[in-house]
Amino acid sequence: MTTCFAGIDLGGTNIKAGIVDENGKVLSKTSIRTEAEGGPDVVISRMCQAAQTVMDMAKISRDHVRAIGVGAPGSLDHKAGIILEPPNLPGWHNVPVRDRIQSHFNLPTTLENDANVAAWAEFWIGAGQEADSLVLFTLGTGIGGGIVCEGKFIRGFFDNGAEIGHMIIDPDGRQCGCGQRGCFEALASASYTARNAIEAMEAGAESSMKAIRNRGGEITSEVILDEMLKGDKLARDIWHQSCRYIAIGSINMAHIMNPELVVLAGGMSYAGEHLLGPVRQYYNELRGPAFGETYPQIVLAALGNDAGFIGAAGAAKLAIDLGELS
Amino acid sequence: MTTCFAGIDLGGTNIKAGIVDENGKVLSKTSIRTEAEGGPDVVISRMCQAAQTVMDMAKISRDHVRAIGVGAPGSLDHKAGIILEPPNLPGWHNVPVRDRIQSHFNLPTTLENDANVAAWAEFWIGAGQEADSLVLFTLGTGIGGGIVCEGKFIRGFFDNGAEIGHMIIDPDGRQCGCGQRGCFEALASASYTARNAIEAMEAGAESSMKAIRNRGGEITSEVILDEMLKGDKLARDIWHQSCRYIAIGSINMAHIMNPELVVLAGGMSYAGEHLLGPVRQYYNELRGPAFGETYPQIVLAALGNDAGFIGAAGAAKLAIDLGELS
Repeated sequence: MTTCFAGIDLGGTNIKAGIVDENGKVLSKTSIRTEAEGGPDVVISRMCQAAQTVMDMAKISRDHVRAIGVGAPGSLDHKAGIILEPPNLPGWHNVPVRDRIQSHFNLPTTLENDANVAAWAEFWIGAGQEADSLVLFTLGTGIGGGIVCEGKFIRGFFDNGAEIGHMIIDPDGRQCGCGQRGCFEALASASYTARNAIEAMEAGAESSMKAIRNRGGEITSEVILDEMLKGDKLARDIWHQSCRYIAIGSINMAHIMNPELVVLAGGMSYAGEHLLGPVRQYYNELRGPAFGETYPQIVLAALGNDAGFIGAAGAAKLAIDLGELS
Repeated sequence: MTTCFAGIDLGGTNIKAGIVDENGKVLSKTSIRTEAEGGPDVVISRMCQAAQTVMDMAKISRDHVRAIGVGAPGSLDHKAGIILEPPNLPGWHNVPVRDRIQSHFNLPTTLENDANVAAWAEFWIGAGQEADSLVLFTLGTGIGGGIVCEGKFIRGFFDNGAEIGHMIIDPDGRQCGCGQRGCFEALASASYTARNAIEAMEAGAESSMKAIRNRGGEITSEVILDEMLKGDKLARDIWHQSCRYIAIGSINMAHIMNPELVVLAGGMSYAGEHLLGPVRQYYNELRGPAFGETYPQIVLAALGNDAGFIGAAGAAKLAIDLGELS
């Protein structure tokens, strides 16, 4: 029987889990509500329940699971296996998730940042499976980052590496939730893209999105994309402004990590070519000719919502392979 | 007898060389003119001459040199050992420096980017000798970068990693020599700092530096520092503007590589506390409180002009240790 790994992807709304074999093949998967309002004990119990469900679905006993990987939103302490203060899990404070899950199943368990595991999934069996190295952006409420270099994560000395969303791109730009000004995240994430549209309308810009707001509709990056495709000029300007910043973020990673690929993931990436087209256009326009052909290609993530649990399972396999877990 | 390595630091003006033992102790060193106007054959012959001189000075035959390291200005192809098109060595085009030196001495030879070797020198026996990881900025004509992570260089898939000077920090900022806008280098390097001062005076700003220009004196970052220390307001504003951008560059590396240290090297770093003080002040002001104590400390480089040949020798030792050279 092939060696299997369990992956658990902890999100603010849903917990996803799956059993993945050593080649990255998904044997079973599930998604249940996080019930974050119940607090850490409820959520950890539900994480264990989800993992048990996928073992049962795949007809695999825990003896045949080699290790468990957990992907979780930051901030977290990978070495200690502790979730520190995640913004989308209110009330959590220094929760030792890894050890709680490890004890429950009596299986080696590793805890990783959710953007890192998404990067690992794409590197393992997704858009980057042929690539030497990649940098992944999760373009959602915030902008997370994952870096795979020489077959490993960049975690940093203080366990806070690959936080690409907090690279400052415009020092006089918008205040970010982290306290800095002009972070990549505060210029181009899905939620800040929506804020840019709302503020432009509040400042008097005309747009078909005004009617949506007037009837109580929420302005999201999906709405902006829809209205752009229907011909709204403001929606186009705002969407393209975010694409321009995503191109600049990609140029910066080209110069710093110089990976083979930049992978766009997360909510905004579901726009597909409507995202990739303008991002590549700005990327080609804004990058320095002096560096010739040394720029990575930009591609879309391939694994969608499954990247979290697949990458978590893959991170568990990686930790075993590197001797970090036994 | 201890194992020794020869380091050669190729600069546009001078070639420095030294013999360094396996513990990083400098046994001999020299500096001669590059004579870049003579073209690649003359320069390579002078590099060999400098290496021979330091072997003779240290009374070490080439049989007792384990390997040779060469640090050179970019752009270069590390894997192929070729210097491509260095801006400060006019007329050079795809010169196979590594193989030429390797054949001359019949010793294993490695070619590395000059900022990488400076970073390695500081990591090996300098400001970062106790550190887990570091990012080094060479603040000179341009801004070079070197990254040491997990005891190795970050070179990138296209051999163009750690080019931190071309990270875009202000997309509407000044045009950089590389063709991009608002590169870190175009905002804060020594030569661009001087240009900022000159342009401000040409736009009408009052400054004691005007008198220096009027008598034909060149405005350099050293002059700006001197005039700032004598109380000139424009000099202070321009110097502090560069320090602010250096702080932003450091914040960005804190979020991406999250090293233990950021090391400031190159011409501007000779300003010592006059550089470090304001950079640290802006670093503390501009960084995000959300990331707590995960920011690296910023320090000055310790090895000065010797970092190049020491790091080149160290890179040769590293390549031997990693089995990349034999």
